[in-house]
Amino acid sequence: MEARYPSESCTTLTDLVLTGETNPLNNLFGGELLARMDRAAGIAAGRHSRRIVVTASVNHVAFNKAIPLGSVVTVEAKVSRAFRSSMEVYIDVWVEDRQSGDKTKANEAIYTFVAVNESGTPVAVPPITPETPLEKERFDAALRRKQLSLVLAGKMKPDDATELKALFI
Amino acid sequence: MEARYPSESCTTLTDLVLTGETNPLNNLFGGELLARMDRAAGIAAGRHSRRIVVTASVNHVAFNKAIPLGSVVTVEAKVSRAFRSSMEVYIDVWVEDRQSGDKTKANEAIYTFVAVNESGTPVAVPPITPETPLEKERFDAALRRKQLSLVLAGKMKPDDATELKALFI
Amino acid sequence: MEARYPSESCTTLTDLVLTGETNPLNNLFGGELLARMDRAAGIAAGRHSRRIVVTASVNHVAFNKAIPLGSVVTVEAKVSRAFRSSMEVYIDVWVEDRQSGDKTKANEAIYTFVAVNESGTPVAVPPITPETPLEKERFDAALRRKQLSLVLAGKMKPDDATELKALFI
Amino acid sequence: MEARYPSESCTTLTDLVLTGETNPLNNLFGGELLARMDRAAGIAAGRHSRRIVVTASVNHVAFNKAIPLGSVVTVEAKVSRAFRSSMEVYIDVWVEDRQSGDKTKANEAIYTFVAVNESGTPVAVPPITPETPLEKERFDAALRRKQLSLVLAGKMKPDDATELKALFI
Amino acid sequence: MEARYPSESCTTLTDLVLTGETNPLNNLFGGELLARMDRAAGIAAGRHSRRIVVTASVNHVAFNKAIPLGSVVTVEAKVSRAFRSSMEVYIDVWVEDRQSGDKTKANEAIYTFVAVNESGTPVAVPPITPETPLEKERFDAALRRKQLSLVLAGKMKPDDATELKALFI
Amino acid sequence: MEARYPSESCTTLTDLVLTGETNPLNNLFGGELLARMDRAAGIAAGRHSRRIVVTASVNHVAFNKAIPLGSVVTVEAKVSRAFRSSMEVYIDVWVEDRQSGDKTKANEAIYTFVAVNESGTPVAVPPITPETPLEKERFDAALRRKQLSLVLAGKMKPDDATELKALFI
Repeated sequence: MEARYPSESCTTLTDLVLTGETNPLNNLFGGELLARMDRAAGIAAGRHSRRIVVTASVNHVAFNKAIPLGSVVTVEAKVSRAFRSSMEVYIDVWVEDRQSGDKTKANEAIYTFVAVNESGTPVAVPPITPETPLEKERFDAALRRKQLSLVLAGKMKPDDATELKALFI
Repeated sequence: MEARYPSESCTTLTDLVLTGETNPLNNLFGGELLARMDRAAGIAAGRHSRRIVVTASVNHVAFNKAIPLGSVVTVEAKVSRAFRSSMEVYIDVWVEDRQSGDKTKANEAIYTFVAVNESGTPVAVPPITPETPLEKERFDAALRRKQLSLVLAGKMKPDDATELKALFI
Repeated sequence: MEARYPSESCTTLTDLVLTGETNPLNNLFGGELLARMDRAAGIAAGRHSRRIVVTASVNHVAFNKAIPLGSVVTVEAKVSRAFRSSMEVYIDVWVEDRQSGDKTKANEAIYTFVAVNESGTPVAVPPITPETPLEKERFDAALRRKQLSLVLAGKMKPDDATELKALFI
Repeated sequence: MEARYPSESCTTLTDLVLTGETNPLNNLFGGELLARMDRAAGIAAGRHSRRIVVTASVNHVAFNKAIPLGSVVTVEAKVSRAFRSSMEVYIDVWVEDRQSGDKTKANEAIYTFVAVNESGTPVAVPPITPETPLEKERFDAALRRKQLSLVLAGKMKPDDATELKALFI
Repeated sequence: MEARYPSESCTTLTDLVLTGETNPLNNLFGGELLARMDRAAGIAAGRHSRRIVVTASVNHVAFNKAIPLGSVVTVEAKVSRAFRSSMEVYIDVWVEDRQSGDKTKANEAIYTFVAVNESGTPVAVPPITPETPLEKERFDAALRRKQLSLVLAGKMKPDDATELKALFI
Repeated sequence: MEARYPSESCTTLTDLVLTGETNPLNNLFGGELLARMDRAAGIAAGRHSRRIVVTASVNHVAFNKAIPLGSVVTVEAKVSRAFRSSMEVYIDVWVEDRQSGDKTKANEAIYTFVAVNESGTPVAVPPITPETPLEKERFDAALRRKQLSLVLAGKMKPDDATELKALFI
């Protein structure tokens, strides 16, 4: 399969924060944001692989910034690295201030998807060639994240996670 | 107020067609697409005006192409012309084929929004400067559409709709 | 097929405006009203044709009156004219004041639906016989609207739209 | 307060059964029908009283007929009797067959609502004058139902429920 | 079939009251609570019978206590008695005060479900053996309720409802 | 503040997987499960702290097991450790087979919530005293997870994460 570029899978989902999605402080529920990111990231993974994709995992996500009712939220998802049948998708979330028009970064998240056929069996996906410096940085870091994920799941010995181990020694 | 460009209001809402939004033929309900386009167009008008905006009208919309369950639909909205307090927003809808990755144009629609203050009174919006040939073409046509809208609403005599009249004589 | 009367397709959808359907001014989103009208009009077209129906187009819709949160909204849809396989549906929207009980006209809209078989192919629908003066007026106007729609879609030359042309000359 | 007629509160909610509201047999969930009936009945009680109303109770409801996905369901609610601040609302549910156009009775239900002011305190409602034979029959039966309700709630001794007792002796 | 215990079907659904589910006094709509109770009770009946189940009826339900927006509501459903193919499910609803942590009883309701096969035909369900004093009390009362239900539906003569009649004489 | 026990915050949300929440393979969307877990975990954190709580972060979550349409899913959330104003909540997800009644573990997840006052400022929460062996194990592991989270967020040097470092050396 021919390699694709991260820009080919770039998916933008801009929408409002509606009542019914907000907590008692009138800010977007964390869970709703997780669901929106899952939809955008799944579309990005589907664009890269041109296959049915299913969520395999979600990396650690921190909610640093409250997103108030009525905000315009942009979820931007892009495949950052492709493995055999899995893809890491990097998601950036932006919130806009209506009066100034300023966009502020609200969140980052990383989801992993697996491409499958109609009966749910994993299938191979095309490789990816990062182009911009940010895409290259995220491509490289994806390997460390995969190792961490395998270690936490007990599927790789900490000692074999060479990329990850380097961080602590 | 300083003029803005159509590209500054460009709003992209890419999302899936889910069950519960489809008719007995398993295609997206026309009404659901109208509602998605209204949300995207309202965000575009809000980005241009930096104000609260309310839907003033929807132009004639034709549904030429069925959009099946599970499709990835992209709604792209951009302010095409600004009047005193109203803005015309042009919306293009694209559907993607998962296997080939091809994007097909599914719909076009034109909504008009009015910028208002907190008590609902219309307020002035910045002018707009079209840049690309398509933006210029849509900017010019917007005047004819406004005249048609006024004629249909009985607020302008057909005889005064000079731009529109030219089409028929 | 035997002709039917507009009253046989008359469909009433009375419901509340709930939070989650309202904009920052606490009024019903235009897009939500468009979706409700589509559902009611689709049921009316289904009652006339006794077939699966799909939205073919929406005429110009003006939103003249804000509909506040908690309102009781009545959407009334009735087939106004039947063509070969398409039907024009006329929709009246009323809002009620709780304290006085007064009903005010909030909107009018015109949708066109096409009757189809299980594989989506258009099928013929029964003719319609208008009875009341208002039904007759809407029946006559429907032909002009169909011409305008064809002209705007580039499927009829302005010169051939005799009914429409008469408005401007 | 001047008496009103049941016809003045008559509320019709015709809508489709959508996916996402159906059980594994593809029929409407009982709970969804209960929620739709509550909305229609609440609007009817609000029309009679011109007040905020809250659901006070639901009488025994039997679900005798399955309502399949895609059906057109009509919920018709009408105040059947007014007490001091409470109102009994009688609800009839009809399902239509698309091909024949036949309407079949699917359910009947009886809800009781209480009219309240902004702080939730019950307030008096107008009396009601039944007109048709069916309205008169339901008006009379409402008293027996109120007694049964009070007995079941332990607020009336079975011995004092004269109307109800007559049924068993 | 071997008898099961009520505790084996016990189903707990704890969730928030969100905006979009509340009336003008900001309390949970009666209809929404009826729908939540139907879902929990249906799961309980499914756990007892290990079959597809459909709602057959809802007993009289009184709404004595308003449940405000943002509340934590616990719906607890348990099969109280099994007949041939039908099951009575008893539902207790609790509301919590955030600051004190106190739980208050908000509602009780009784739904009846029928177990069916894939084509909707009723099938036999296992018997049930009540264990706690409350389970025994509800088991015994279920027979009286079934008689009342049959009398109200005109399927049993009041004179034959021996358990029920005893209440009034 | 007096210490509380994990069992006091235990929150159970048992519900069906409905259409409209499922992907093209008819399994629950990962994002929907993340949203349900967020609601259950937020209620658990609210029960422990008796405060408004907001989602602060989500730990790595793996989706190992598909959850098909129509499944009964039980989300069980319990506070596993309390820090100054934050709480770690451990979530177990179970899926039931209708015919055998067997419950299978489908997922585990760990969310962190912060207790805040009405203006969103963090406030102190009660300490927690684990009781069962599993609660003790999760309480101990919570410290390592907090260190990992701080390291990944760049708020703690890997060298200071003594608990975490021990894993790799």
